Amino acid sequence: MLGKVVVIGVGLIGGSFALALKKAGAARQVVGMGRSQEVMARALELGIVDSVTESPEEAMAGADLVLLAAPVAQTGPILAALAPYLDIGTVVTDAGSTKSDVVASARAALGSKVKQFVPAHPIAGRESNGPDAALAELYQGKKTVITPLPENDAGDVGLVAAAWRLCGAIIHTLTPEEHDRVFAAVSHLPHLLAFGLVDDIARKPHADLLFQYAASGFRDFTRIAGSSPEMWRDISLANRDALLTELDAYLAQLTILREHLAAGDGAQLEAIYTNAQRARRAWSEAIETAEPPPPKTQEPE
Amino acid sequence: MLGKVVVIGVGLIGGSFALALKKAGAARQVVGMGRSQEVMARALELGIVDSVTESPEEAMAGADLVLLAAPVAQTGPILAALAPYLDIGTVVTDAGSTKSDVVASARAALGSKVKQFVPAHPIAGRESNGPDAALAELYQGKKTVITPLPENDAGDVGLVAAAWRLCGAIIHTLTPEEHDRVFAAVSHLPHLLAFGLVDDIARKPHADLLFQYAASGFRDFTRIAGSSPEMWRDISLANRDALLTELDAYLAQLTILREHLAAGDGAQLEAIYTNAQRARRAWSEAIETAEPPPPKTQEPE
Repeated sequence: MLGKVVVIGVGLIGGSFALALKKAGAARQVVGMGRSQEVMARALELGIVDSVTESPEEAMAGADLVLLAAPVAQTGPILAALAPYLDIGTVVTDAGSTKSDVVASARAALGSKVKQFVPAHPIAGRESNGPDAALAELYQGKKTVITPLPENDAGDVGLVAAAWRLCGAIIHTLTPEEHDRVFAAVSHLPHLLAFGLVDDIARKPHADLLFQYAASGFRDFTRIAGSSPEMWRDISLANRDALLTELDAYLAQLTILREHLAAGDGAQLEAIYTNAQRARRAWSEAIETAEPPPPKTQEPE
Repeated sequence: MLGKVVVIGVGLIGGSFALALKKAGAARQVVGMGRSQEVMARALELGIVDSVTESPEEAMAGADLVLLAAPVAQTGPILAALAPYLDIGTVVTDAGSTKSDVVASARAALGSKVKQFVPAHPIAGRESNGPDAALAELYQGKKTVITPLPENDAGDVGLVAAAWRLCGAIIHTLTPEEHDRVFAAVSHLPHLLAFGLVDDIARKPHADLLFQYAASGFRDFTRIAGSSPEMWRDISLANRDALLTELDAYLAQLTILREHLAAGDGAQLEAIYTNAQRARRAWSEAIETAEPPPPKTQEPE
């Protein structure tokens, strides 16, 4: 049982964390903090938080656990604002989609107090945002990746893991660098590719004709191009090195596919398509066994 | 009202056409023909066709309309087998995903009788295949693209259009070359890209780790990589020139994205992402207005 939990950014991610802890009876008091008074008022109205504050000092006083659920580019400024009021017994965690840059910002903002910061990334989301989209069940059966720092106490890492388990999440542990390499491949690159394809089509002189005949394959392939441009700009830049590595590997793959296609080499094309189909089906079966399809959940943001 | 309709290949596409015409009371007799005795027996059992035959002569005798619904690579051999028995009053059409190659095969196989061949492509499908997947409603509200030949009589084109309208389809007209350029961009390229991405990930030494963290964005982006490798090998080769043009444009786009990313140019990345999001949302709204989401239909095959 936690005493005081502070959620900074009470939108989909932070709000769902707060609701899940409340539902589990695991937090005596949840305090919300954020830049938008409107969002804070709505979170209070929805019962996601018990109180709101604009004062870092008031928020940090006696806090057991602080979740940072704001865009990753704000990590440094927010932690710098909290740092002077951070009690020795308070554990801070985050929910950012990238980890190496978050860790670098946390080190710069917190100095030696970075030992109290346990970075994490819950792998869940929905298409909609804001406090009204928050769900107590959002993390049920989903992964949360914790990327502990060498400076972290085992007890603090355990506290963050326990809080996410109370939300229904399954805990995985990676280093920040491993995390960023993995998500560059399976999330950040696909987003860049989908944005790139839709922009490419939209700029063609006959774009209207093309879009007219786009069907369900196009719809699924490009669904993630409907995501927030600002958020994905930040993620792309925050994870630039790993994303460039994955993009270069993919460009090499497309160059090979282009050669097979230009040569009319059906056997080579079929070998690649067959390997992809096999791997896609194996993944699909494995993931559906491990994580039964949830209602309306979507890519992490 | 059609008298005798022949469907060659009574799987999802041909079977659904037969069922829709029967449901509309628009065909006195539907004859099925195909390579697999098992499939033909099942189509008969399901009432999709009234009779089956292995004889082109028997099938063609007195036929009003013939639908070729076999893989596009079989167009030439099948039409060559039918040609000697093709009555002057019979109209032949097809349902292939590519058109220029189908037209070339038809010209070679039919000679001057190519005037009786009206190429078409219904833009509908499902994940499952075979006669058991056939649905009378498959084409309801979906597009069918007809790509008439200069040799076609207007009356024959009208007959094919009327048959598809009876199935509930909305008729569009393109030239075979326009058709292939359009579908290279909005269907064939996305398939190649999705196959390419999954194969790329699957070949990495840490593929198991990567797949473990792939979530719903990856699932949607790669759904079409679960499609038939053989079918997509054939489509890729059949539409090679248009697909190479689209692939090269996309490679140029990715090269630009790579430059912006390497330069850390957030404004340029955001401009591309924003244009893509805007276009994707506009498309999604337009398509949902024009075609209300149907039950469980999928990418054309």
